[in-house]
Amino acid sequence: MSAYVIAIDGGGTSCRAALADRHGRVVGRGKRGSANIFTTSDAIGKNIVAAAGEALKDAGLDVARLSEIPAFLGLAGINVGERQQELAKALPFADTRFVHDGLIALQGALGDEDGVMAILGTGSVYVSRSNGALRNVGGWGFAIGDQASGAVIGRTLLQQTLLAHDGIREHTPLSRAVMARFDDDPEAMVEFAQQSARPADYGALAPLIFEHDGKGDLIARDILLDAVRDITMALDTVVFKGCDRLCLLGGLAQEYARRLAPRHRAILKEPQGDALSGAVQLALRAFAHEMAGEERR
Amino acid sequence: MSAYVIAIDGGGTSCRAALADRHGRVVGRGKRGSANIFTTSDAIGKNIVAAAGEALKDAGLDVARLSEIPAFLGLAGINVGERQQELAKALPFADTRFVHDGLIALQGALGDEDGVMAILGTGSVYVSRSNGALRNVGGWGFAIGDQASGAVIGRTLLQQTLLAHDGIREHTPLSRAVMARFDDDPEAMVEFAQQSARPADYGALAPLIFEHDGKGDLIARDILLDAVRDITMALDTVVFKGCDRLCLLGGLAQEYARRLAPRHRAILKEPQGDALSGAVQLALRAFAHEMAGEERR
Repeated sequence: MSAYVIAIDGGGTSCRAALADRHGRVVGRGKRGSANIFTTSDAIGKNIVAAAGEALKDAGLDVARLSEIPAFLGLAGINVGERQQELAKALPFADTRFVHDGLIALQGALGDEDGVMAILGTGSVYVSRSNGALRNVGGWGFAIGDQASGAVIGRTLLQQTLLAHDGIREHTPLSRAVMARFDDDPEAMVEFAQQSARPADYGALAPLIFEHDGKGDLIARDILLDAVRDITMALDTVVFKGCDRLCLLGGLAQEYARRLAPRHRAILKEPQGDALSGAVQLALRAFAHEMAGEERR
Repeated sequence: MSAYVIAIDGGGTSCRAALADRHGRVVGRGKRGSANIFTTSDAIGKNIVAAAGEALKDAGLDVARLSEIPAFLGLAGINVGERQQELAKALPFADTRFVHDGLIALQGALGDEDGVMAILGTGSVYVSRSNGALRNVGGWGFAIGDQASGAVIGRTLLQQTLLAHDGIREHTPLSRAVMARFDDDPEAMVEFAQQSARPADYGALAPLIFEHDGKGDLIARDILLDAVRDITMALDTVVFKGCDRLCLLGGLAQEYARRLAPRHRAILKEPQGDALSGAVQLALRAFAHEMAGEERR
């Protein structure tokens, strides 16, 4: 029984927590680094607990009460099953439920309406809701998925820059800017990619691509034409007949929105709220019983 | 001073060693797993020492004599500087010299002739020699290089298979065969890719692509058209004016040779020898002084 729920939005670049009361009012907030399931379980757990603890402190509650409060988590990469159990064991909450971060984002963006939502940030994922039925596409992570995401286009930028360094394609202002970031040393770039780069590190290169695309850079153009093709193919898979509501979320949403095909741009809507607000809505439903119990006490 | 040299060919899938006498005659051979510089230094070192030790045993010599014999190593990924020093310290040889595996392959394929050599195996790299001057292109490794390599096309195959699973593109016999390898479980595929897959594991999927391309599979076709475009662009960068000798090496050499542009197919030649024979040639030159000393003794 608890008077509160914890809601977590764990994406590729940050982990945000909200403490909400039984009316869905957010009474405390916290924020930490990435809670992507593919960073190590230890790091995820630490970031989640730290963000949740911060939300309790923000509300003037003792952090030790984490163990009395149920938590509802939307996490990037949660598609991949086994790690959920590992993680649930590592977390201190009274009860722990996981969903893919796409679902909390959908709830935040559309409320209970039908429509389509795409997250285009460090990763990429698409979710549709049609007559209440959900369909999930993408969200498979950086290694073999997440087309058009910041991490994937950042990696492509390094690939294209190495090709320019080798003389296989022409250098452009963008590829020269990337070389400069690595002191014009391709070995430093490869060392970064092979040894230390996480998706968010590649994703940090994405703004540079959009910036240079605006100036007609040919490497930026090629990368973004491919990325928009990938987004268009994914949207054509999830946008159902009669769908009149498409919300784009994530750090690259605005840049990609301007580049969408006309049929997709025509149904673009502002999201109702963010993913964390969606997690709060879902937390209240998931733990309605516990909250009602509290009410009766 | 030593009567012998050790030559090592360390590629992405295996590490081969030869013990040669002062006349370049190979008197012992050994073979172990990958010596790619991007596997951990510990594993590389162990594989190199084990392969070299096997070559000594094969020649009827005591393995303890490793420390009396100089070694010449051609290693995949050796472009990347700092790790060479780490590795050199970890190895027991009397003297240790490293070059990129492209250079020993070039020497093996072309002897002292001018020409171009491409290794198309787990990784990909191109080397040209024109009037004795060397030029190296590619060979930057799996993370942001190695276009058209077995590892890269294997990874692309998993990406395309996930797109088919999501309904973003049509399934083909090839993508269904890949799904079957993972018990039709996309999460198992993602877990493989994110957690355990090394370049050689992705590369193990490459033969499946060529096999299905022969049957007109559309996913195989698209992957190989892109790969051949990448090879063609790289070859056009390194094939110099008047070049009449192009050797392809590596596990995918034969399959790609049939698919090359006519201008490149026209100058294809059989390699004179393999990379290990090139390493023996270069070892004799590098350690000529030590060997001559031995002769004088």
